Amino acid sequence: MKDHYLDNSATTPVLPSAAQKALSIMTEEYGNPSSLHTRGFRARQELEAARAVIAARLGTKAEEILFTSGGTEANNLAIFGGAEAKKRRGNRIVTTAMEHDSVLNPMKELEKQGFEVIYLKPDSTGTIPERQLMEAIDEKTVLVSVMLVNNETGVVFPVQAAANTIRRKESPALLHTDCVQAFGKLDFTPQKLGADLVTISAHKLHGPKGAGALYVRKGVRILPRTFGGGQEKNLRSGTESVPLICAFAEAVKELPKGSETLPHVEKLNSLLRQGLSSLPGVELNSPGDASPYILNFSAGAVRAETMLHFLSERGIFVSAGSACGKARPSHVLEAMGLPRERISSSIRVSFSRFSTEEDVHALLDAFTEGLNTLAHE
Amino acid sequence: MKDHYLDNSATTPVLPSAAQKALSIMTEEYGNPSSLHTRGFRARQELEAARAVIAARLGTKAEEILFTSGGTEANNLAIFGGAEAKKRRGNRIVTTAMEHDSVLNPMKELEKQGFEVIYLKPDSTGTIPERQLMEAIDEKTVLVSVMLVNNETGVVFPVQAAANTIRRKESPALLHTDCVQAFGKLDFTPQKLGADLVTISAHKLHGPKGAGALYVRKGVRILPRTFGGGQEKNLRSGTESVPLICAFAEAVKELPKGSETLPHVEKLNSLLRQGLSSLPGVELNSPGDASPYILNFSAGAVRAETMLHFLSERGIFVSAGSACGKARPSHVLEAMGLPRERISSSIRVSFSRFSTEEDVHALLDAFTEGLNTLAHE
Repeated sequence: MKDHYLDNSATTPVLPSAAQKALSIMTEEYGNPSSLHTRGFRARQELEAARAVIAARLGTKAEEILFTSGGTEANNLAIFGGAEAKKRRGNRIVTTAMEHDSVLNPMKELEKQGFEVIYLKPDSTGTIPERQLMEAIDEKTVLVSVMLVNNETGVVFPVQAAANTIRRKESPALLHTDCVQAFGKLDFTPQKLGADLVTISAHKLHGPKGAGALYVRKGVRILPRTFGGGQEKNLRSGTESVPLICAFAEAVKELPKGSETLPHVEKLNSLLRQGLSSLPGVELNSPGDASPYILNFSAGAVRAETMLHFLSERGIFVSAGSACGKARPSHVLEAMGLPRERISSSIRVSFSRFSTEEDVHALLDAFTEGLNTLAHE
Repeated sequence: MKDHYLDNSATTPVLPSAAQKALSIMTEEYGNPSSLHTRGFRARQELEAARAVIAARLGTKAEEILFTSGGTEANNLAIFGGAEAKKRRGNRIVTTAMEHDSVLNPMKELEKQGFEVIYLKPDSTGTIPERQLMEAIDEKTVLVSVMLVNNETGVVFPVQAAANTIRRKESPALLHTDCVQAFGKLDFTPQKLGADLVTISAHKLHGPKGAGALYVRKGVRILPRTFGGGQEKNLRSGTESVPLICAFAEAVKELPKGSETLPHVEKLNSLLRQGLSSLPGVELNSPGDASPYILNFSAGAVRAETMLHFLSERGIFVSAGSACGKARPSHVLEAMGLPRERISSSIRVSFSRFSTEEDVHALLDAFTEGLNTLAHE
């Protein structure tokens, strides 16, 4: 049975070239980049070469890229480190109710510390109305965190509008954006977005789990969360995972421009939408202008876990909301005000540039069969 | 020119079997362990198998092992998470002045938060007198953090004495011990040490950089530092780096018992001590009962950086203090009260079980040549 892996927003297989790079660093260039001898220098060179690759792709300076153990750590560093650095300027934070848990849960911690956190709600299409953002950000706001592409629905959030508002209102706020689902798919730069802090992750783009980065705009000061040997400009202590970071860079090197892969993924998305449209009781939760890499829909009477299991047995892998959320009902679809049944039956299909029409057909066939079989159980 | 890598306390080359395991997980078992489909379950199985291997080696339950991105993160989690969880019971913390920066720098942060931190000083041999430990720990002490093997001198600290004192004085303190330099070399178990929290790291024992673990004794409550999807029992959110964790376990599987490799390493250590004893102006900074894996000595008139460079050019890799400390004078040797020149000329040689007599001879030859050449410059 051939696998049809359509859960690429949860994680992706690592490109062979990237995995090979990790292996060769592990066994050959194994020095500690902080060591003051040739083996150390060579490891440092590999590390800095990787930083340059990722910076180039993001359109930033190499020194603006800090490596972390992944998107979650980068989000935590941006949010705690940003709020802490700015707390003398105010105690208001603006975010959305639809961020990833690695943004929302740090926010809950900041609330315990006395910050006032505004969680913006989406409109019926699942996006954040710009007007709401503009009204929420004020001169006491020290941090704004708005993701670029929502991980459950693919909806693109108005990050630039947040940047414009911060500038116009002369707010002291730092602007953070979680671009884990956008990097390598949408063409953006931190500068174009107007963001001070940008989170990216390797394992969503055919790099390894355990590597991510935080862009920190030059001149922006945040405080560290992890203390020790002072690596990564004293903002993220701990021996850098040179093998994973170099594999991350290798995966980034092989990334085509977003605009090059978009037509292919749009075609897959359309094909799936078309196929689903003929099925009774199926409702789409992703609007038409969402990122084509993600399509969220509800299977009506069939619970998502049941459908997931049915599909998984047939070698088709999709998810119910985010992988991290596990069995909890989606806070994203809840924020959109969808009815409970529609939430509990929601399925997320997520594409990679390597996904094929065959994958979509296999999914549609099995999903249709599942609807017929399971709805009557 | 053949390399003589004698900086194994900084980092080690990854075993080919461990690197291969990482590669195969990356490309084949690439699922997200939180995903609710077969690919996810299989990744979860790999992750839990790795946890079981590491737990077995440590003599603990699998559920007591939390994976982190390395020793630094594990130390930070233990110290912040332990102090935070216990802060209602007191505000005193006891540690030593010779801990790794990833313990000392979190301690400095806790001081800013109002904790009183006692930094115990060593005696002239570089160890912490048990009496000092006993006197320092009281009924208001909430955390004790004492490393098992010092990373710069190899001195073994009296962790068990700390455990006994905590018990005898009925102190509420959690006992944390940084065992990064001890794991796989000394035979110990958290239970025998009486420790509640134990830090270990993969890249010091021929596993990869970017993986570590914190043992958290069953029943001990600490608070998380990283918030998000709730992985690792909600104590360390973020998609687990399954490739690196499995490579870590692979390296642990291949670890002989400490007692099996000790005679070989003791022989290398003796050989080095013997060779150094005939060199004028060389003084040993590691006492005779230190871990044989580390030998620290001072080269008298030659600055460590100069000697390091000289040796590195000849393919011999050692360090001046810890790799993380970079060019700063060693706080460990400072705490021992050594004179400045002896500190600035200090060299750390650190062995692995794969080190050879040939390595020691090559080092001694080059070091002797260095002394003769450089001392007269």
